[in-house]
Formats: sequence, C-alpha cells, structure tokens
Amino acid sequence: MNISDLVGQAREGQPRAVAKLISLVEDAHPSLREVAAALTPHTGRARVIGLTGPPGVGKSSSTSMLLSALRKEGKRVGVLAIDPSSPFSGGALLGDRIRMTEHATDPGVFIRSMATRGHLGGLAWATPQAVRVLDAAGFDVVLIETVGVGQSEVDVVRLADTTVVLLAPGMGDGVQAAKAGILEIADVFVVNKADREGAETVVRNLKQMMAMAHEEKPIVRTVATRGQGAEDLVRALGEHRDRLEACGELSRRRRRRAASEVEAIALRRLRATDFHTGRLDELAGQVVDRRLDPYAAADALLAALRSGQ
Amino acid sequence: MNISDLVGQAREGQPRAVAKLISLVEDAHPSLREVAAALTPHTGRARVIGLTGPPGVGKSSSTSMLLSALRKEGKRVGVLAIDPSSPFSGGALLGDRIRMTEHATDPGVFIRSMATRGHLGGLAWATPQAVRVLDAAGFDVVLIETVGVGQSEVDVVRLADTTVVLLAPGMGDGVQAAKAGILEIADVFVVNKADREGAETVVRNLKQMMAMAHEEKPIVRTVATRGQGAEDLVRALGEHRDRLEACGELSRRRRRRAASEVEAIALRRLRATDFHTGRLDELAGQVVDRRLDPYAAADALLAALRSGQ
Repeated sequence: MNISDLVGQAREGQPRAVAKLISLVEDAHPSLREVAAALTPHTGRARVIGLTGPPGVGKSSSTSMLLSALRKEGKRVGVLAIDPSSPFSGGALLGDRIRMTEHATDPGVFIRSMATRGHLGGLAWATPQAVRVLDAAGFDVVLIETVGVGQSEVDVVRLADTTVVLLAPGMGDGVQAAKAGILEIADVFVVNKADREGAETVVRNLKQMMAMAHEEKPIVRTVATRGQGAEDLVRALGEHRDRLEACGELSRRRRRRAASEVEAIALRRLRATDFHTGRLDELAGQVVDRRLDPYAAADALLAALRSGQ
Repeated sequence: MNISDLVGQAREGQPRAVAKLISLVEDAHPSLREVAAALTPHTGRARVIGLTGPPGVGKSSSTSMLLSALRKEGKRVGVLAIDPSSPFSGGALLGDRIRMTEHATDPGVFIRSMATRGHLGGLAWATPQAVRVLDAAGFDVVLIETVGVGQSEVDVVRLADTTVVLLAPGMGDGVQAAKAGILEIADVFVVNKADREGAETVVRNLKQMMAMAHEEKPIVRTVATRGQGAEDLVRALGEHRDRLEACGELSRRRRRRAASEVEAIALRRLRATDFHTGRLDELAGQVVDRRLDPYAAADALLAALRSGQ
C-alpha cells in the first residue's frame, strides 16, 4: 500500500481511502508516521464541532439535521461518532449509525463511528488523528458526536473549535445537578424537542444558570426530527466561530488540540516501550512486597527513563 | 499536621483520619510522598472487590447487601463509590450515598465517593491510592463500586482482586450487544432482581454466552433489597479468592494494580512538570503551523525529556 497514493485518493474524495486512513490510525499501524507526515501539509482548514448531550436528547436526529443544513450550504462534512463503549451501552450508537444512512449515499458526507473499549487512552489517542485525516481529506466541517458519559465529553471539548451541548425537556434532574459542568463545556446550547411541554423551563433554567455565573451563551431551540431550528443553529455556530477568530481563541484551541495529540502519541510510546521494557513490572513487584512506596517507584521509573536504561 | 500521627489514628479506626488521608491523596497534597511512605508498611492485607453494572441494576442495594453480609462475618469494610462524573449524570450516585447511610454509624464501615470530573487520568490516579489508605487503615475488604459507563469499569478491573458484574432482567438490549466485553470483565456474575420475570432468561443468556466462549464463571441470583442471595455471593467471592491464590493469579493482579499506580504517578509528574515546562506548547504550535507532524513533535518531546531539557 502506497501511503501518498492513499492520501491523494482521500483528497479526491474517495470514501474508501478516507476509511482506510482512519483504520490505520485506529489500529496504530506501523505506517502511522508516514501517514501523519503525508497528511500534515493538507491540514488546518476544517472546522471541528463537538456535539454532546445525555442519552435520549435526540442527538442522532440533531446531528442528522445539522448535516443536512451544512450540506445545503455546499459544505463537505465528516462525522466521527464516538462510542464510549461501555460493555453495558455497547449498542447505544448503533441506532444512530443506522439512522444516519440517509446520508450514506451522499459523497459529501463521511460517517465513521469510533469504538475504543478497553484501550487505555484510546479515545484521546485516535480521535485527534481521525480529525486530522478528515481535515486533510478536504472536509470543511468535522462533527464529533458523543453521548455525555464520563470522560468522553471532556475529551470532545479538548478537540473541538466549538462545542454544542444538547438538552431536552423531560431529561430528569441529573442535568440540574451538574449545572456548572455543563456551562463550562458548552459554547452553544441546543434545547431540542422545543415543541414539547417543559422546553421553555429548560431554556429558563439555562438562562438563570448563566446569569448566576455571569456568562452568556447562545441557546437555540430545535425540533430536530422536523428540521426546525436548523438555520438558527448554523447561524449560532458561525457566530461563535467568528468570535473565536476575532479574539484569538481559535488558534489557542487548535494549539490545545495539537498539544493533546502530541501528548497522547508520546505517552503511548512511553507505555509501549520505555515503561514496559523498562522497569515498571519489576518496580511494581517491589511495591507489592512493600520494599518501595509507589512514589519512590515512580521516581525510579522516571530516572530510568531519563537515563535511557 | 503530623502524617505519622494521622496514619496511626487511621489504623486505630478513626474515620476522620481515614477521610483526611484520602483527601490528601485526591488533592495531590504536597505531603503525598510522606503519606505513601507511611502507609506502605501496613498494606497488602485487604481484599479488593470491584462491583459494576448498568444503571438501574440495583447496584446500590447490592453493595449495601454485601456490606451487611461481610459485617456479619466481622469484616471491616471500606467502600469507594466511583462517580464517573458526567455533567449529565452528576446526581446519579447521590442517591446511593444517601441510602448507604444505614451503615453510616457503623465504625467497621467507611464509605467514600470519589468524583474526578475533568481530571485527565483522575480516576486512575486517585483510586489506587485511596485503596492503599483503606488497606493500611486495616479494612479487611475494600469494595470499589462504579456504574458501568465508558472507561470506569475497565479501571475497576485493573484495581480489583475480584470483579463482580451485576445484571438484572429488563435492562434492554445493550447488554446483549456487548457480550464479549462483559465476559472479559467479570469474575462473578450477579443476576439481581431474581424474583422478577425475565431473570431466568438473563441467567440462560449468560450461560449460553459462556458456553460459546468456553468460559465458566459463577452466577449468583440475588434479590438485594430483601438480602436474598447474600450468603451465596459471599461464598462465590471467597471461592474466587481461593482460586486466585491457588494459581498465583492473585499476586499477578496485585502486581498489575501496583504497576497502574506507579505508572499513574509517573505520568502525572511528567504532565505537571516535564511536558509543560518542557516543550509541549511550543511543539503544538509547530504542529498547528504544519511545520511538524504530530509524530515528529512527540519524538522531540520525548527527546527533550530524555536529555533533561
């Protein structure tokens, strides 16, 4: 397989080449370095938008609605559906994938779900590199969608230029209990199912919460299943993007994304080689035997790393 | 504050001293090293049992049931309730904590919930050290409970001697979709709400799944809210523990736990100092500007680390 051919085909819009490149990244294929080197010159253009929200909020139909709206503007859109991959929620995103097949025959759309169960640091490792593939392949927008469980939505924030938090009426008290966390994450709020009872309560609660925190973030009302609110959402995203650019925050966020990516690559290499061919297992044995405390063992591990032993 | 006094008080069973030590660990207090050194000689005795399962399975009442059963045997029990801390599930474990107050006045029980939202590597960092505190304080059993979302149950497996996976009838298809993941994680299965319709179907499915994978793991039926099945569960846990010891697997698992702990401490130190006072941000800038690909940047980061720059 010739990497530069593959990159060329991906840039010509061949979905099979894009898929192949993402697979190389996910599997940590030996050609990774070559792939990254070939992609890098073509990157830096795509807008990266994160979508997150609790299960049941209508994330799938919202993504689909946003996809359609962006396609109407002629944008090519890549979607990374991050599967947090609990063995207990294994099927959660399957429905999404199936429903999104309405876009499957559109050459301007590429949808990929990324599952990383059990892979320590797997999401942090693979997602930024998959974004890089889509960026280099000429997608104007990359949507990263994840259900809001555990660490995953925090990871999305680290990767996105703009993060959309979806809410809906009738989602229970969990959302209330964690106001601060939501405010921190969101650049744009979407209150989906806005035709249902309770939607205005959700909006009002959000506004109160923001007032208390002296924050102001846009709230867009949508009924995703009917496409209502799509233009408002696209406008809110565009305005956020403009603000980011105007105040220099866009380049800070992209630098943060690159730093995450570089750090994940470096940590993976440390884990795969130095820490293990190194002294980790031996040191762990000494901790179990109570001959070393774990801090002293960590010191010894780092010292071995620095001296190249 | 005198650390050796604090450790002494914790070992005498003073819950306030135990709580204080865990807080020092969670906050990465400067005295951490001293704490770890003071704890280490007293560790290595506690059994560590992980409990995980999907939301709604009756995890809280199961933990409570197991606590009572172990207390009847005179065991001192520490519980770490790991909160995966999504902003969307912020309140999920609150109910558990409140319900567990039935054990709150029992001096042989210590319950702590650990929340680590947004803290990269937070769980991997703090949990093994909290286990160490409880172990040194003389708890015979440490229960680590977590809802099964994302990475958290994998982390629990890395820490526990024995992992219990809870299931119940009527939990939907998600569980079916991820058979392999569950089998990999569990040492003991509990089918809770065993008096409800569908419980035998859950048991049958588990058995089929195990037969297909040529695995055999114990399945215990419980009705946790009525304490039914508690003795069976304690027996299954004891038998698993005996098997672990007989085949040398117990010491392997403890070595793995120590390795996780040492690695987390070392990574945290790298992140806090070398990577950041080091060249990470500068390298990220070069990646954003397309002057470096991320692999070359990771190389440069590791080279700087090794040469102590």
